Amino acid sequence: MGKLLVVGSVALDTVKTPFGEGADILGGSATYFSTAASFFTSVGLIAVVGEDFPQQHIAFLKSRGIDLTGLERRPGSTFRWKGEYTHQLNEAHTLDTQLNVFETFRPQIPEAYRAPDVLFLGNIHPELQLDVLHKVKRPSLVACDTMNFWINGQREALWKVLEKVDVLIINDGEARALGQDSNLVKVAKLVLSRGPKHLIVKRGEYGVLMFNEKQIFGAPAFPLEDVRDPTGAGDTFAGGFLGYLAATGNRSSEAMRQAIIFGSVMASFTVESFSLDRLRILDYKEIQARFAEFKRLTHFEDVQ
Amino acid sequence: MGKLLVVGSVALDTVKTPFGEGADILGGSATYFSTAASFFTSVGLIAVVGEDFPQQHIAFLKSRGIDLTGLERRPGSTFRWKGEYTHQLNEAHTLDTQLNVFETFRPQIPEAYRAPDVLFLGNIHPELQLDVLHKVKRPSLVACDTMNFWINGQREALWKVLEKVDVLIINDGEARALGQDSNLVKVAKLVLSRGPKHLIVKRGEYGVLMFNEKQIFGAPAFPLEDVRDPTGAGDTFAGGFLGYLAATGNRSSEAMRQAIIFGSVMASFTVESFSLDRLRILDYKEIQARFAEFKRLTHFEDVQ
Repeated sequence: MGKLLVVGSVALDTVKTPFGEGADILGGSATYFSTAASFFTSVGLIAVVGEDFPQQHIAFLKSRGIDLTGLERRPGSTFRWKGEYTHQLNEAHTLDTQLNVFETFRPQIPEAYRAPDVLFLGNIHPELQLDVLHKVKRPSLVACDTMNFWINGQREALWKVLEKVDVLIINDGEARALGQDSNLVKVAKLVLSRGPKHLIVKRGEYGVLMFNEKQIFGAPAFPLEDVRDPTGAGDTFAGGFLGYLAATGNRSSEAMRQAIIFGSVMASFTVESFSLDRLRILDYKEIQARFAEFKRLTHFEDVQ
Repeated sequence: MGKLLVVGSVALDTVKTPFGEGADILGGSATYFSTAASFFTSVGLIAVVGEDFPQQHIAFLKSRGIDLTGLERRPGSTFRWKGEYTHQLNEAHTLDTQLNVFETFRPQIPEAYRAPDVLFLGNIHPELQLDVLHKVKRPSLVACDTMNFWINGQREALWKVLEKVDVLIINDGEARALGQDSNLVKVAKLVLSRGPKHLIVKRGEYGVLMFNEKQIFGAPAFPLEDVRDPTGAGDTFAGGFLGYLAATGNRSSEAMRQAIIFGSVMASFTVESFSLDRLRILDYKEIQARFAEFKRLTHFEDVQ
């Protein structure tokens, strides 16, 4: 198994945006995450799909070199999400969620997966996140995601997870809900006092902020003329971020900043098409070129 | 008169935020703009106040070295704005607007003001902006602001102004209304095709984007633990931006980027207190220090 292990969802999405729509297209947090990460490092995936999950999607993930030993196929239907975006692309309106086999998902960790270098605990019940964490040899870097459903309903269990992770990656609404404060600097102080060494706040079209005890790093999102479908941008960001860190082995503040940019680069590609269509035809040279464009986007000279 | 001329409003604001309130405190776009700019260059102000405008505010503006030859005092009351912010500090809710003497404001340009190096046309009727522009020797740099009221109600007159300005500085909602598109890259293409060489889009707590024909520059807002009152942040930004450019005389892309950071620095100070209270006690060393902090906030190394 690879350096980077991810547990999360694999789904079939039905998505409508002002620029098109897709029915039962490949989606899910672990799908976006692992595909993005696969451009940087070897990845193992722990997730569940139903009997109806198309073989072509399995073939795609395998073509990305992703280890699917941990992808269970169970009786029943695959997790389905249906959502819509208005012109205000920053926010999805969920129309329907059918958890199906994901509802009873209990991550099984194959023997070969038990010593990952980097672990990403995708957005699942905090107790399942904790269970996964207990079943592997402590990776050199553990990151996790969550959502308001757990923040509001499983707060204590969630804090127990956060005590044990290095990086929490959430969006700004979730950060404010977790910290029970509208000011992100105050939220970061609270979160960093409870375990994570880094808090990464995703702000969609407005970019990302990373807080640690000593510094803050901020990057805008890459301005795009054609954003067709924002679905999966946050998970793609996390995949690029952790994929780069797993690849380098470097955990310095400088590497973390570069990882933020690689995550932002990957997310900027994902939103250019529906599902993972842009990532299917992406090559590493394009990633490097957009990283350089990010530098031009944000650079300014010191003054004397 | 100084290098930088501004026409806009001087007002008395009544503001309430979750962190305090103030009644009839010093406000107005030209007030914030000129005070911020005064840290960088000499400024002349064209505005109107009523008989009730406190002498202490005049004394404050004078103490900042601002030339008030163009500040008319007329019979009647000073422009008053009353607004409130919820915890979502990014948006003001206007409770009351009393234009008073500002309603019939016709900018008079003193002879000594007729050859400014840089001109900022604050948010007034586009025909008045055009009138000011016609009455001065063409400055080396002209920037303007506007608002949805003029974008929706005086679109043709506004485009006539924009044909003649170098820089349009507006917030993201205004940009989308002006370009009639939710995508800012598309809006920028349209705006840049109609006159301005630079479009600057202010996004409040999310920072700023600057577009020109060849490049985009993006900067986050400075993350602050204590934001007490966002009023005037946008005008302060514009004052810092144009003040720096007026001071340097440099119009290169590199100088524009530094100016964006100086504008952001000034705005970050303004929001720390009500009215212009933070700017009253600010010194240039603090501005330089925060500029350096901005560099640390946004810097990342190239990858090999």
